[in-house]
Order: sequence, then C-alpha cells, then structure tokens
Amino acid sequence: MPKPRLLAALLPAALMLALFAAQANGQTPSAAKARSMQEILDASKPSDWRALDPGNTLYLELASGRVVIELAPDFAPAHVANLRTLAREGYWNGLSINRSQDNFVVQWGDGAEDEKARKPLGSAKSKLPAEFSRSSDKLDFHALPDRDGWAPQVGFADGFPAARDPASKTAWLAHCYGMVGAGRDIAPDSSNGTELYVVIGQSPRQLDRNITTVGRVVQGMELLSVLPRGTGPLGFYEKPEQRTAIKAIRLASEVPQNERTALEVLRTDTPLFDELVEARRNRRDDFYKRPAGHIDLCNVPLPARTPPAKG
Amino acid sequence: MPKPRLLAALLPAALMLALFAAQANGQTPSAAKARSMQEILDASKPSDWRALDPGNTLYLELASGRVVIELAPDFAPAHVANLRTLAREGYWNGLSINRSQDNFVVQWGDGAEDEKARKPLGSAKSKLPAEFSRSSDKLDFHALPDRDGWAPQVGFADGFPAARDPASKTAWLAHCYGMVGAGRDIAPDSSNGTELYVVIGQSPRQLDRNITTVGRVVQGMELLSVLPRGTGPLGFYEKPEQRTAIKAIRLASEVPQNERTALEVLRTDTPLFDELVEARRNRRDDFYKRPAGHIDLCNVPLPARTPPAKG
Repeated sequence: MPKPRLLAALLPAALMLALFAAQANGQTPSAAKARSMQEILDASKPSDWRALDPGNTLYLELASGRVVIELAPDFAPAHVANLRTLAREGYWNGLSINRSQDNFVVQWGDGAEDEKARKPLGSAKSKLPAEFSRSSDKLDFHALPDRDGWAPQVGFADGFPAARDPASKTAWLAHCYGMVGAGRDIAPDSSNGTELYVVIGQSPRQLDRNITTVGRVVQGMELLSVLPRGTGPLGFYEKPEQRTAIKAIRLASEVPQNERTALEVLRTDTPLFDELVEARRNRRDDFYKRPAGHIDLCNVPLPARTPPAKG
Repeated sequence: MPKPRLLAALLPAALMLALFAAQANGQTPSAAKARSMQEILDASKPSDWRALDPGNTLYLELASGRVVIELAPDFAPAHVANLRTLAREGYWNGLSINRSQDNFVVQWGDGAEDEKARKPLGSAKSKLPAEFSRSSDKLDFHALPDRDGWAPQVGFADGFPAARDPASKTAWLAHCYGMVGAGRDIAPDSSNGTELYVVIGQSPRQLDRNITTVGRVVQGMELLSVLPRGTGPLGFYEKPEQRTAIKAIRLASEVPQNERTALEVLRTDTPLFDELVEARRNRRDDFYKRPAGHIDLCNVPLPARTPPAKG
C-alpha cells in the first residue's frame, strides 16, 4: 500500500543526480561530464542560439493556435521560393487540413476533389523541379557519431536533421518527427508546395530522397499531432466537415512585428550541442540504469525557446 | 493549372505497378518478386495469422471506443499476472488517462496526488521484480536482416518487436510505436503495472532494458495518440477535468464472447512475413524512386485484421 507515486515516473526530468549514474556505469564520477540536457541548456550562452529568420518562417494559423515552421531554402530553394509566394498571396487561407494518418503524416492543402474547382495559384509556379537532395559542397554538416541504417552519414545542417553520402557528394533532409515535405504524385517533379505534410509518428525515413522536404515545425506540433485520424484511405477525412480549417499561412516577415512569435533554436554546430547529444546518447540521471551508448538521428531533441529578455 | 491532384500523393498505396519499379531498380522484372504489402496480405493463408488469446488481451474502454492490447507474458510474466488480477478486479475502472506528452507517451492510472487517496490494489501485488529482459534461450526470435544502433540484433518474437544480445544471451522488447510499458519510479523494481504508458511518437529505444514492457496496442492506437497534450511538466494534465476517463480495463477472457473484438495478428515467423519486410525495405511501387534497402525495427508494420468469415 505505501506504493511510491508512479505518475512522475518514466522520465523524472527533475532528478538529475548525475554522480550516481556515472558511478553505476563504472565511470569516474564527474558531475561536469554528466550534465543533463536541462543543465546544459541552462548553461547555454546567447551565441549557442540562433533567431529564426522571418523571411524563412511560416505561421500556420489554426483556431487552436499558431504552428511555426522554419523553411529550408538551402535544401529546397525552388520550393521555398514558391512557398513564400503562395503565403504572400494568401493561397492557403480558407483551405484545410485534409489528412491525418496515424503514425505517419498530417497533410494540408486544397481539398477540392474536382481539379477545376481548385484554387488558382496566383503568381506561384505550378511546376517545380524535384529537390530531393543537393550537393554536399559548402554545406556545414555536423555529423553524429552514430551509425545510421538509412544513410552513410547523418547529422545536422543548420538545425535540420540531415544525411550525407560522401560517395555521391550529396546531402538531404531526413524525415524525422515534425519535418515538413511537399506532397507529390507519381512524377518526381509533381510537387509545387501547395500540398504540404508533416511527420507525426515514427520517422518514415524511406521517404528520404524520394520527395522534397521543405522545412520543420519548430513550435506547435501538438496542434497538428492530435488532429483526429481520418477514416478514409491513407487517413484522408471522408467528410469535408471533418477537416480542420486553415485561417491563414503567412510568412513571418509579412506579419506586423508585434504579432510575430519570437523564437530561437539551438545551434547544432557548437560544443554545447555536442554535449547535449552525448547527454542523450548516455542518459545519466537516476532513472536510467543502462545508458544506451547510442542515439538515432530522429531521437535528438532540437530545442527552441523564447529569447530571454535583454537585461 | 492542370495540376495533378496532390491529395492522393505521398503514398499512393493503390498503385502498385511492381514491374516498372523492379526494372527501374535494375533487377530482372518479376512481379512475383515485387509484390506490395497489400498484395502479400491478400495472398496470405489462414496459417499466416494467429488469433489473439483472450487470456492475454486487455480491452481499454474509453468513451471514444475500445483499445485492444496484447500482453507479453513471455517477457514480463510477473507484470502480466498482476495486470490480469488488476483487470479482473476492476482496478482501473473509473480511473483516467493523466498524461499525454507530444512525441513520447500517453499514460494512465491513478491520478490521485495524495498517496493515501489512491485506489487499493485489491489482491494484486504492490511489488514486483523488474522484468527488463529475459533469457534468449527457448525464445523463438526471428531476426531482421538490418543492423540496429541500439542492440546487437533486432527482430520479432511472436509478433512483438524485440532485441537480442548473443553475448549475454538475453532478449527484450523494443519501445516501438504502440508498445505498452509499466511506469516506475527511480528503483528498477518500483513498477507494479497499475501505471501504464504507450509510445505515441518516435521510438524511445533508450528506454529498452530500463523499464518493464508489458505488451502492445493491436487496435485503437488512434484513440490514444490524438489525446490533447498535457501542458504540465512531462505532459501531465494540469487540471483533473482535462483527463480522459477510463470506463474499464477488462481481460478479454472475462468479457462475454459476443462483446469481444475478434482479431488476428500477422505471424512474424513465416516466409510471408519475411516477404512483407522485404517489400518495406525496398518499396517497389511507382511512387518510390529510390528503394531504401533498409528498414528500422520500428518501421515494420505489424498488421492485424478481423478474421475472415468462414466459407
């Protein structure tokens, strides 16, 4: 009957007695070597963070709140340019989220069945090249120490989970939780960015290099991941009234300054980030009895924060 | 303007022109060698499936419907025995889902803050041994061909995603999407099964061998994965009224026959399952331009179905 309270169990983030865990692991006890993720973030300097560029940031506005998406022009320049045009001209405003497939994706765009009933694209392009990968030259790629089954190398490029192939000298974005891509038909170059999806489950890395990935949800994933699953094929909603309305998708730079969401993301090319990755590769808090000594690319947290007030 | 309809994009499961994909991949065209998952399932025989054992099946009953959980007594015999007792005595009936943390877990049990206010355990045990792993002797382990970063070997044991270490001759269940575990406190043996969680995001494999895993959701994941995320620490709901009520958790064998959910799961120890895995390691439908040649353990689908009517 005097059962300990199990509710705070599973991951008691507050308890970070690193010393004990390090000892249990047979290592020299060293608190400095075993800071928890939270301790590492608390010790971060302003230079460990990078502010989102409003010109590369989309706001997806729902009745439930705002989803903030960082675009990846370094990987999909043509798609990102088209997304900017579509947002600027209000293409998605009044359209809807049409698909929610459990453990896979949530997808939005023009739900009209009839091609002729679809919303005109305005000055956006209806046809774009496929942007499945890019040259790895001049890409600041920060490799993870861990081996990956899907790619020769994985790591981070300016905050995005990515992969690299030294043989072909190419790099591409990885389909981790929260990554946003451009839906397409059978032809590789059949996406134009009007139809977007976000990963809401186990990383479907088989999509890597098979579709154009355009960005990442930095804030507000929980507004998309909880949408009722569609009961039609592939998780599409069977009735239009089941769809979630999109109030607007806007480029942050087009939004008045005082209506913007100030956000910083942790830089992924710093010693602090390396320490964070190591803290997650080998959990040192009391909860974990056996540090894994490994992490998958898509398990690495990519923290975002409201910039601290300037003192 | 004559844009193709992008809605059915991303994964057009209906289009499975295997011949074309096999050719594009430089292989000898052979429809027999490149069946899609659906074609493989359509060609399955009754012996490729296994009915759930009602004595190892829990029904979690919510207002939104029924979640079906298959228990894993081969991996956690003491916990499963306690879960059976708790279910039989109605322990969870009237309790609630208290936690929903995005990209991690949904968790249920007794939400009472005060230990003294907690529901009595009846004849269930309040203390159990940790069951993080078992001997791999006499375990029918069906290995995946793919290398895994978290364990020396991964594969399936009677339908459950699992891992094995030949050196220590141990095996354990893997924390894939839909896996159910027993929440605990700091002490390894502090779980008794009253507090359960299910994985709703990227597989948190760092929990493997750190906590007792007791089963897997076979049907109804979409009732749990869409629960609003809690805004308290670790995704706990801050107000009791935000919790989702549990009508009952019952052992299927205690439910009248005509109220049971008839379900079969695909066996994971058959040539048909190997073919299914290969079909997912290398997608052959027209959508995929570059088959991955790899799959992660937690990306392998584990199909369930209503048993076909006997002819």
